[in-house]
Amino acid sequence: MRIDSGLLERQLDELYAIGAEPGGGAYRPLYGPAWATACDRVAGWMKAAGLAVRRDAVGNMWGRLEGSGGGKTVVTGSHIDTVRHGGRLDGALGITAGLAALRALIEARGTPKRPLELLVVCEEEGSRFATNFWGSRAIIGAIQAGEADSIADAEGVTLARAMRERGFDPENISSAARDDLGAFVELHIEQGAVLETEGVPLAVVTAIAGAVHLGIVVTGRPDHAGTTPMDLRRDALVGAAAMIQAVQSIAAALGRPAVATVGTLRVEPDQINVVPDRVTFTVDLRHADLGGRRALEERIRSLCGTIASERGLGIETRTLHERPPVPMDGAVRKVLEQAATEAGVAPAALVSGAGHDAQVLAARCPVGMLFVPSIGGRSHCPEEATDPAHLVLGTRVLARALELLAY
Amino acid sequence: MRIDSGLLERQLDELYAIGAEPGGGAYRPLYGPAWATACDRVAGWMKAAGLAVRRDAVGNMWGRLEGSGGGKTVVTGSHIDTVRHGGRLDGALGITAGLAALRALIEARGTPKRPLELLVVCEEEGSRFATNFWGSRAIIGAIQAGEADSIADAEGVTLARAMRERGFDPENISSAARDDLGAFVELHIEQGAVLETEGVPLAVVTAIAGAVHLGIVVTGRPDHAGTTPMDLRRDALVGAAAMIQAVQSIAAALGRPAVATVGTLRVEPDQINVVPDRVTFTVDLRHADLGGRRALEERIRSLCGTIASERGLGIETRTLHERPPVPMDGAVRKVLEQAATEAGVAPAALVSGAGHDAQVLAARCPVGMLFVPSIGGRSHCPEEATDPAHLVLGTRVLARALELLAY
Repeated sequence: MRIDSGLLERQLDELYAIGAEPGGGAYRPLYGPAWATACDRVAGWMKAAGLAVRRDAVGNMWGRLEGSGGGKTVVTGSHIDTVRHGGRLDGALGITAGLAALRALIEARGTPKRPLELLVVCEEEGSRFATNFWGSRAIIGAIQAGEADSIADAEGVTLARAMRERGFDPENISSAARDDLGAFVELHIEQGAVLETEGVPLAVVTAIAGAVHLGIVVTGRPDHAGTTPMDLRRDALVGAAAMIQAVQSIAAALGRPAVATVGTLRVEPDQINVVPDRVTFTVDLRHADLGGRRALEERIRSLCGTIASERGLGIETRTLHERPPVPMDGAVRKVLEQAATEAGVAPAALVSGAGHDAQVLAARCPVGMLFVPSIGGRSHCPEEATDPAHLVLGTRVLARALELLAY
Repeated sequence: MRIDSGLLERQLDELYAIGAEPGGGAYRPLYGPAWATACDRVAGWMKAAGLAVRRDAVGNMWGRLEGSGGGKTVVTGSHIDTVRHGGRLDGALGITAGLAALRALIEARGTPKRPLELLVVCEEEGSRFATNFWGSRAIIGAIQAGEADSIADAEGVTLARAMRERGFDPENISSAARDDLGAFVELHIEQGAVLETEGVPLAVVTAIAGAVHLGIVVTGRPDHAGTTPMDLRRDALVGAAAMIQAVQSIAAALGRPAVATVGTLRVEPDQINVVPDRVTFTVDLRHADLGGRRALEERIRSLCGTIASERGLGIETRTLHERPPVPMDGAVRKVLEQAATEAGVAPAALVSGAGHDAQVLAARCPVGMLFVPSIGGRSHCPEEATDPAHLVLGTRVLARALELLAY
């Protein structure tokens, strides 16, 4: 199969130029003008490739190649929206590489047995609305009644209004649901530095990590920084610092793929000469399986509690958000591994720490993912990049996997 | 000598009621209406006690009792301004107890040999303007030309305009300077919990600690919290947490009176799912003598630098503010110790971690301070309180010390 790497790179460039921001990177928020332009551009590419294009009720686009034998459809693709100052590859790669793979398959093998579809997911990043996998949730029929009216962007525009302004009727959302998906396979960048560090050009994802977000409040006593000896203090920030160290140590000791991050922290009263009496911070913790994630969470909760009680500090821990880990389908993984092996690559087995549409679509069909390396692990920024040879390799393996699944 | 404790408590209540805030506590910012009312009230009390009252060019008030032998004047007193939601005793005690001591001395001993004065300092807290000992600096002639025009409050009112609105002429500031001060002795609350913890009712202050404020910026790399394994991170917050622990440990290991406090901290980008790449925090460190303070600062700088380099983090440390320690005068300390001993008390020797006017006036005359315990160490808040028996004891010792100095 011939992968047209020149066309792949040009289409990536074209998409990246849509929504280009003055500060670098591109921004294509759901239902915005850049988003609409990008959808039209991709629709044109799909038609040119011979795919039958349709948009569903929330703006997902499907480019379909009918199969001679009917049956459930084999799907590849990714999302077209971006974060602010987003990079050139996140989402865009899964779309352009999926299209390149379909073009190569049509050229080399013609009509498949099973239908083949390229899916352009309307939204995955949650950048404009707190939508949380809007496009793929519509596909599995998981959007709640009234949800489009209950979510607004930073300007106060509801999701329902944004839909209508773009020509979509919120009353029709349920019509976007599909029950005829046979498999979903997505090529994505790793967004981390494991592959680069290990010198491996490709990974087959084993699971998408579950995430828990904890909100922790540590309380002590606000004392005068000059008049209170060290041994008479109950310093909430010194206690929180010990907890931050503990969170790091516990995840590091458990080893990959366990990760735990304190990303936000607020000190009160936040005065240079007052011992802090209140510190609020968050912990983002992830693991590949539910048992591992629970063990990680339990150790963090337990050690933070011990640190607080040893220091006479109060502690309150709340679960802000919880998402179970999603294992990739075993049969699809085997197909991806076979395709990689045939391309001469021994793929790494990687847990995705980031969330992806595949974790939602897994509720309707077997899913699998391929990762190519991110240079320097950079993502969600203008520096996001991948060696062009790795892009071609990923596209070639994706195409072969689709061939194995659909022909 | 008879200390009228009932009058002392009533005058403390009266002052505390001036500038009472809805949320609790009192607020008497420099040159504000509550400040002016409080000055007038104290002026009345001083006149009633037989003192000759005058206000200087910046609004300090002096209540003078002439001495038969002339010579330099013996001064006691404190400041009349407060912090926001200030307590009942900070500043107010030194004024009301000083007045009670002078009343007792006049009653018991009549005219002193040397002049005795009660000083009501117009401003010490820096609550309205970043004035930094405005009243006592005027007394030692240390206010810069043009300074009153260069400082404005939160509403943009300059100090010069606030002075004029209250009837003071900024052109006359230099006339507030005095070169005839023989000694300054102040009774103040400890504002910490050392005396209470040790069960001692009185302290003679040995020195006012020097303070250094450091601003530290730690830089790492912003990584995706889900996709970056623990061992590939350069987490600025985990590094800063280790530094906060180190700051605490170093000061605790040096022991009293060394203190070091991280009071403010800011995380960037401050997102729940992004590894922090930049943390900015402050260190307030204090010690009784310059050598001790320098050792403390040096160890903190050195260990923070080591922590940064071990973790591949950047670090920048700036000195935001520096104030040398001020030892109390040896002869005045001996007088205070003698007075305490005569009252049947073995006083503690304490370093003041907080700043006081005495550290400024030390440039013009021998100074000394007495501390009475703060219940629970509370200060700068409505809970600020001292056992009435301790207030009387402090006042009695102050009176005896003034007697030793002036009669």
